[in-house]
Amino acid sequence: MKLSPLYTDYYQLAMAQVYFKSGQHELPATFDYFFRKLPYQGGYAVFAGLENILETLESISFSQSDLDYLKLIQFDDDFLHYLSEFSFSGDVRSMAEGEMVFSNIPILQVEAPIAEAQIVETVILNTLNFQTLIATKARRMREAAGAKTLLDFGLRRAQGFGGLHASRAAIIGGFDGSSNVLSGKEFDISVSGTMAHSFIQSYENELDAFRDFAKYNPENTVLLVDTYDTLKIGVPNAIKVAKEMEEQGNQLKGIRLDSGDLAYLAKQSRKMLDDAGLDYVKIAASNQLDEYLIKSLKEQRAPIDVFGVGTNLMTGQPDSALDGVYKLAEFDGIPKIKISENTEKTTLPGKKQVWRVHYSDGSPRGADVIALGDETEISTMHHPVDITKMLNLEDCKLFPMLHSVMENGERVHKAQTVGQIKDFSEKKYKQLPDEFKRFDYPHEFKVGVSKSLLDLRNELIEATT
Amino acid sequence: MKLSPLYTDYYQLAMAQVYFKSGQHELPATFDYFFRKLPYQGGYAVFAGLENILETLESISFSQSDLDYLKLIQFDDDFLHYLSEFSFSGDVRSMAEGEMVFSNIPILQVEAPIAEAQIVETVILNTLNFQTLIATKARRMREAAGAKTLLDFGLRRAQGFGGLHASRAAIIGGFDGSSNVLSGKEFDISVSGTMAHSFIQSYENELDAFRDFAKYNPENTVLLVDTYDTLKIGVPNAIKVAKEMEEQGNQLKGIRLDSGDLAYLAKQSRKMLDDAGLDYVKIAASNQLDEYLIKSLKEQRAPIDVFGVGTNLMTGQPDSALDGVYKLAEFDGIPKIKISENTEKTTLPGKKQVWRVHYSDGSPRGADVIALGDETEISTMHHPVDITKMLNLEDCKLFPMLHSVMENGERVHKAQTVGQIKDFSEKKYKQLPDEFKRFDYPHEFKVGVSKSLLDLRNELIEATT
Repeated sequence: MKLSPLYTDYYQLAMAQVYFKSGQHELPATFDYFFRKLPYQGGYAVFAGLENILETLESISFSQSDLDYLKLIQFDDDFLHYLSEFSFSGDVRSMAEGEMVFSNIPILQVEAPIAEAQIVETVILNTLNFQTLIATKARRMREAAGAKTLLDFGLRRAQGFGGLHASRAAIIGGFDGSSNVLSGKEFDISVSGTMAHSFIQSYENELDAFRDFAKYNPENTVLLVDTYDTLKIGVPNAIKVAKEMEEQGNQLKGIRLDSGDLAYLAKQSRKMLDDAGLDYVKIAASNQLDEYLIKSLKEQRAPIDVFGVGTNLMTGQPDSALDGVYKLAEFDGIPKIKISENTEKTTLPGKKQVWRVHYSDGSPRGADVIALGDETEISTMHHPVDITKMLNLEDCKLFPMLHSVMENGERVHKAQTVGQIKDFSEKKYKQLPDEFKRFDYPHEFKVGVSKSLLDLRNELIEATT
Repeated sequence: MKLSPLYTDYYQLAMAQVYFKSGQHELPATFDYFFRKLPYQGGYAVFAGLENILETLESISFSQSDLDYLKLIQFDDDFLHYLSEFSFSGDVRSMAEGEMVFSNIPILQVEAPIAEAQIVETVILNTLNFQTLIATKARRMREAAGAKTLLDFGLRRAQGFGGLHASRAAIIGGFDGSSNVLSGKEFDISVSGTMAHSFIQSYENELDAFRDFAKYNPENTVLLVDTYDTLKIGVPNAIKVAKEMEEQGNQLKGIRLDSGDLAYLAKQSRKMLDDAGLDYVKIAASNQLDEYLIKSLKEQRAPIDVFGVGTNLMTGQPDSALDGVYKLAEFDGIPKIKISENTEKTTLPGKKQVWRVHYSDGSPRGADVIALGDETEISTMHHPVDITKMLNLEDCKLFPMLHSVMENGERVHKAQTVGQIKDFSEKKYKQLPDEFKRFDYPHEFKVGVSKSLLDLRNELIEATT
């Protein structure tokens, strides 16, 4: 789905017009994308949305209809002429999509003529903030679910068209599939689903509904068993149909529980199925699941094979947004900062690199150090505000985290599939020490700055105030 | 933005294929859309999204690319042939968009061949659930803000492409404009914005930035005054520029506060502006606003003229989804119910009409009665579960709420603009008694059923169990 570049804030275009009219629009600017607070009081976030951003940046252009509208709302002809030839010609450095990321570290940097960098700000924030939120939520559910199957059933409760990318981000965070067919097509995601209560109600009785479904979907039948009474009617009917399917040489794939006490019903259903020799029939469960409920069901040893998750996945409840921002770090070769009364919110100037710190044996130290882009020797990391806090890095190995992904408006590498990103993210999550994965009071990832970056920032603060 | 009909749950297509193969796909079905719980522990919701649904239903069709994908994921050729000629041929009865709506009343009814009604379920739920949530949130902010200007600045924190319709729903709920340019174009919404911190940082100093902005936007300049120090630097610079603008025959439109104690800063800024003879310069404020903060700022008599609202509007925080459902009420002429162990969740069968109850003097009674579609004489309303609760309606006036909006797949009336819907909604909100508008412990709107509907439901429950 190609998006119009008008999917931006009005002020981006207003500012771009001023830059254009004052002859500054081609001057290079560097912006950092980062967020200030990890979602869910958790210990990490899963970075997602990068491939969509690169696709958007590669293809961004104003249609005649876009330009006509901008003329209507009083943009000037000379600026509209500039927009008619607009494309994104900048560079992007970024962490890999799927990477484990933390608060207050630059995750993505855009370096482009300032008018271009400004016009694309909103779609970058909109995309990365949302997909990172949802991928993180999905990863928490995957942590709770272990090796069980996780399916996204949430499109009906998604925030409008947000559902399109929510399903993609869920896969990156570790989900196995989605009910969302369009996302399946767009992002090559496995799609699946079972049946609705309405299907069963439309028949004279449940057994007829089950039989018809099995007849026309012999290879993919999951029967919803709670329409009338799960244990008295639904499961016995499912067993009957499973036996009839066996006679045809087919196998019932599963049953789905969608109400009531899922732990109790799963245990009873499992026993009934097993007693009938149907140990291969899987049990799926849905109904207001989140990571805590999945964890509880696992702890109760509920024999559930598949979790179908809706609202709490697709909307990221209880957090509805990641607070990601896009801050000017350099303009026309000059490092810039934004001062704040809250010192923690004062930004870091200049083009930067982020280094992930490992112990000499290769195990992760649980820390990132932010340095200037051209630094190669980083021997200490410093707390950005508290001058008493310093860490010696001499025995550590440092790995650079920001890599060039777009140069002069063109991708450096070919696009990655959602499956590739998911596998990469899984690997990175496994490397993260367990104490960052706890739901309650996780260990805090340390973020520091190099001595050179600290000095530059302090100089600029003094010069400004 | 035309959406693919693949923006649906996989099971809708799987069920439609079974209906098709068993020869039932053309049989008529009636589905009710309703939600179970009012958002925000509030006393009402604002119904939104209807026009988008009608537009979607009028234009729905499967492209060759959609069909190719469905073939790839194993749908059968004869069913794909049916989909290649698919259009929506059904009827829709609905409450008016912008209407005040309540829990457990049918707000919209779809009557269509069952395969059609099923395939469009997901997009109907996705659209109405989300826009109703956001319009309701916006209305609460409007209640708090009184006659002050309310602007949506939330696109960067919206849930992905959900931002497109969130901005539309915000207007229906009472907002004056949006920063979202694409929504402005698509829905004829007033768009506006100010400037970002990055714009000011890109200049040597704030004053130069203000001057350039004023020079190239003389008719629409709102200066962001908190980049360095609001009261010591920002407001004095804004006053200087306002005076220079006066010399050119222009007027500074406003200043914007985006951090710190908004009440204090607004009072101080107002005094400084007034002392400089700039009483016409407006004060805009943004930064994590919601209805409670707006109410508090008003109570503190903060002289803020414009509130710019982001995350809490666009994502509906703290509620991220309305729990709307789409339940089968009739199939092939036979009324249907879905039984639930939780009696309150047992659905109401048959084609229905909803009547809003007014006292004989025309004032609202705060109650809706749900009746069968062909009932004309309704003299009592009954609690759906508690048989001891009954209300005599003989002295009341009843107004039908569900109106035909689509027949045989075509709109009955021409499309309404967002502005028209907003005005209608404003009028309906004014008619709602104050006790439903309270943020804390609002009065509960009564929902009952007619005697005939109650009898039909009870008959069906007996026949089923």
